[in-house]
Amino acid sequence: MNKAKIRTAIEPTRADNYPEWYQSVLKAADLAEHSSVRGCMVIKPWGYSLWENIQRVLDAKFKETGHQNAYFPLFIPLSFLEKEAQHIEGFAKECAVVTHHRLEKGADGKLVPAGELEEPLVVRPTSEMIIGHSFSKWVESYRDLPLLINQWANIVRWEMRTRMFLRTTEFLWQEGHTAHATAEEAETETMRMLEVYANFCHDYLAIPVIRGEKTPTERFPGAVATYTIEAMMQDRKALQAGTSHFLGQNFSHSCNISFTNEEGEREFAWTTSWGTTTRLIGAMIMTHSDDDGLVLPPKIASGHLVLIPVIHQEERKAAVLSYCEALAAELRRVPFDGQPLKVIVDARDLRSGEKNWHWIKKGIPLRLEIGEREMQANQMALARRDRPHKEKMTLAKEGLSQHIPQLLQEIQDALLVKATEFRNQHTVPIDTFDDFKQFFSSDDTGGFALCHWNEDPAHELRVKEEFNVTIRCIPLQGESGPGRCIFTGEPSPRRVIFAKAY
Amino acid sequence: MNKAKIRTAIEPTRADNYPEWYQSVLKAADLAEHSSVRGCMVIKPWGYSLWENIQRVLDAKFKETGHQNAYFPLFIPLSFLEKEAQHIEGFAKECAVVTHHRLEKGADGKLVPAGELEEPLVVRPTSEMIIGHSFSKWVESYRDLPLLINQWANIVRWEMRTRMFLRTTEFLWQEGHTAHATAEEAETETMRMLEVYANFCHDYLAIPVIRGEKTPTERFPGAVATYTIEAMMQDRKALQAGTSHFLGQNFSHSCNISFTNEEGEREFAWTTSWGTTTRLIGAMIMTHSDDDGLVLPPKIASGHLVLIPVIHQEERKAAVLSYCEALAAELRRVPFDGQPLKVIVDARDLRSGEKNWHWIKKGIPLRLEIGEREMQANQMALARRDRPHKEKMTLAKEGLSQHIPQLLQEIQDALLVKATEFRNQHTVPIDTFDDFKQFFSSDDTGGFALCHWNEDPAHELRVKEEFNVTIRCIPLQGESGPGRCIFTGEPSPRRVIFAKAY
Repeated sequence: MNKAKIRTAIEPTRADNYPEWYQSVLKAADLAEHSSVRGCMVIKPWGYSLWENIQRVLDAKFKETGHQNAYFPLFIPLSFLEKEAQHIEGFAKECAVVTHHRLEKGADGKLVPAGELEEPLVVRPTSEMIIGHSFSKWVESYRDLPLLINQWANIVRWEMRTRMFLRTTEFLWQEGHTAHATAEEAETETMRMLEVYANFCHDYLAIPVIRGEKTPTERFPGAVATYTIEAMMQDRKALQAGTSHFLGQNFSHSCNISFTNEEGEREFAWTTSWGTTTRLIGAMIMTHSDDDGLVLPPKIASGHLVLIPVIHQEERKAAVLSYCEALAAELRRVPFDGQPLKVIVDARDLRSGEKNWHWIKKGIPLRLEIGEREMQANQMALARRDRPHKEKMTLAKEGLSQHIPQLLQEIQDALLVKATEFRNQHTVPIDTFDDFKQFFSSDDTGGFALCHWNEDPAHELRVKEEFNVTIRCIPLQGESGPGRCIFTGEPSPRRVIFAKAY
Repeated sequence: MNKAKIRTAIEPTRADNYPEWYQSVLKAADLAEHSSVRGCMVIKPWGYSLWENIQRVLDAKFKETGHQNAYFPLFIPLSFLEKEAQHIEGFAKECAVVTHHRLEKGADGKLVPAGELEEPLVVRPTSEMIIGHSFSKWVESYRDLPLLINQWANIVRWEMRTRMFLRTTEFLWQEGHTAHATAEEAETETMRMLEVYANFCHDYLAIPVIRGEKTPTERFPGAVATYTIEAMMQDRKALQAGTSHFLGQNFSHSCNISFTNEEGEREFAWTTSWGTTTRLIGAMIMTHSDDDGLVLPPKIASGHLVLIPVIHQEERKAAVLSYCEALAAELRRVPFDGQPLKVIVDARDLRSGEKNWHWIKKGIPLRLEIGEREMQANQMALARRDRPHKEKMTLAKEGLSQHIPQLLQEIQDALLVKATEFRNQHTVPIDTFDDFKQFFSSDDTGGFALCHWNEDPAHELRVKEEFNVTIRCIPLQGESGPGRCIFTGEPSPRRVIFAKAY
């Protein structure tokens, strides 16, 4: 090994090969692995706890905004999907289809599918049609509205190219589905939930996002308007971190969700849907991690602090371990962000260097080494995951239960600042097609290109084919003022964001 | 309506028609409904929150006992299932099989399945084989053991006859899967989790259960031993409320879960699995509910207390409502069983009689009517769901935040006492086959029959066919001493429990 290589725990580095770096970070942190089922992943405990933390926070926010959880069938009869032409067209190419309901021994003794279903069932790629069918029974009068429902579930979309957490055949998500008496109320709901998502990314995942509307080309199949939050990864590609759809009356027509209004007339309801997925974990990894492995925002981290006992003499082992366990027990009673601190004591028979690297790669925010010296001095040497691994700070044991939560909050804030600076640095107004081509010409350039565009989908198609660049969104905030389309010179009311994307 | 009919809110009553009473209770409480997908149900918010409460408590208990959550694929390749002959035989008749991965327009313009898979995928009926495959990669050395994993997931078993919460094609569950270095450790784990389930039923669902072992006939396909907790419903039928399986080395052989022991030799691991499902909700309903509808144990209830504003003069409405809202806000800060009280203010424009019956049918433990009189007297009239609906107690507003949690605990305890008395009353030692036949001869008799049996499965088969009675379990506790088999007169070491079952 040459000296340059010794410096990072992950190979290749981000600069060397970003996609492979991502896979290596996942593996080194033991977050997930490929399964033997094509395109499906196994989410391992350290990765799954990130999802549990995301669920806990988002679920509380959904409930605070008046939503209730429910559960709807995994299977959708084919005939249901056909009711909404645009919708089914968007999903037909990637549906897992159940056609049989038992297995039977074939002629060669091998099991084969048997008991063919009269109507094939599609494993839900999204639940608008099946939930819409329930809504049509639940909504009778204006008094039943708004109907505000959320579901935590697994989803299947038969993706051809998959990447763990970012795009898998099966993934976990939540899907909100709501029905309202007026278009205005449904639009307000659509924007409210976009805001919940944006704030969650900002406050918990430490990911700055741009709120915007998708162009018609990029809309959810069947939606009137799709809103999105877009984040920038460290390779300057965009990642769609959540979407919220105003469905107008499209789905209430196809599912027959109608109600009697205050005047006694029958009207169709206005509906919305909105979702975030285990993809958020991929976004978090790609926003914060470095060439030493995973870096986790403390508010969502699977663990907050690891205590590493340093044992020089075997006969003192029990004393050091019990000191660590007592300290851990004390710290586990300390709250951070309303939850008890998650403290790990790494008592394995390994050298402390090895343990340190283990936890660096797993992204734990704080590491505390404790040996005889620290016990006697009542002082601890503490290392932060967001700082160089050799940088240590000395803390008195006395004030630890105040300092640990403060430090975690500092790390949380620092990650957001760093990610925001990076994003801002690579968000560039671009005024000519030549500059645009230059911007997206290599992997070392690129980012968010703020460009004027004449709203013609032909140009979207062209830059997608030529440069693999799409319009990520028409930003809702930070009005850019009018200008000239970079493709045609025609007038344009505002800049939109072009980028390569996951 | 005749006078007798006016007395109950649910029709038919338990005595009239128990299965229909059950469906009516579900409907009146708005817990769930049939979906348009054969055998699948929609779990509505009031029902789903019961599952959320069950999940919260059980999940904490799994973590306390050292387990971690993870997530594994929904689909199992057919070849995986074939590796364990007994296992696949147990599930082959009820598997949903995915055979295609997209939809295409057929000759008549209708969508048909396309893109046939090379190997069919089975929607998981349980996950031993898919999790076992992961375990085979995760376990290398004795240091990797024990491996203690749990998964919260949806499961599909193509059931021919379904009943909401009790037996549905898709259901929600948790499945624990663990691997150990020795048979003893795996057996200890099997019994530990049975105990977690039994205590949970007892302490939270207020359901007394009998811990026991299943006979070989009733074992989980592929298990060495299956342990169960059995509860008695109000129609005196048994309901299996959870199972814990000692799998020996059967699955570690078929999935190749092996490890290097401390002596450097390769050994197969010893595994367990254990599960509870949304069926627990059915058990809770059938144990506690009455002819007025749902009765919920407070520790798992979707709501604890409803405040019903009583408005006699329209101009005082705002004052009464804001008094109720203020009181609700105050009570929502009071903890019960470590969680904030769930308080509902029913401000709908309905008569208070109607509101009372609404909440009686939904099983809310406490109802508080508040009008001008109560406001002025600082006294509240409170009704308990487990007492006759006209019985009211007067409470000073002053001590409400102490009294409400006390009353909830009293209701919780009273439900358990009542259910235990009922169960004990209908648990009868039976010593002759004539008495056995008599006991199970009609719907007005029956219960748990404690009988001696010579361990011959032929008798199990016979009573199953003739009386629809099965051996629920060989109890682990309450040793009955030896006796004579009721079928043959042969010596038997202990009594087992015969019953009709869900």
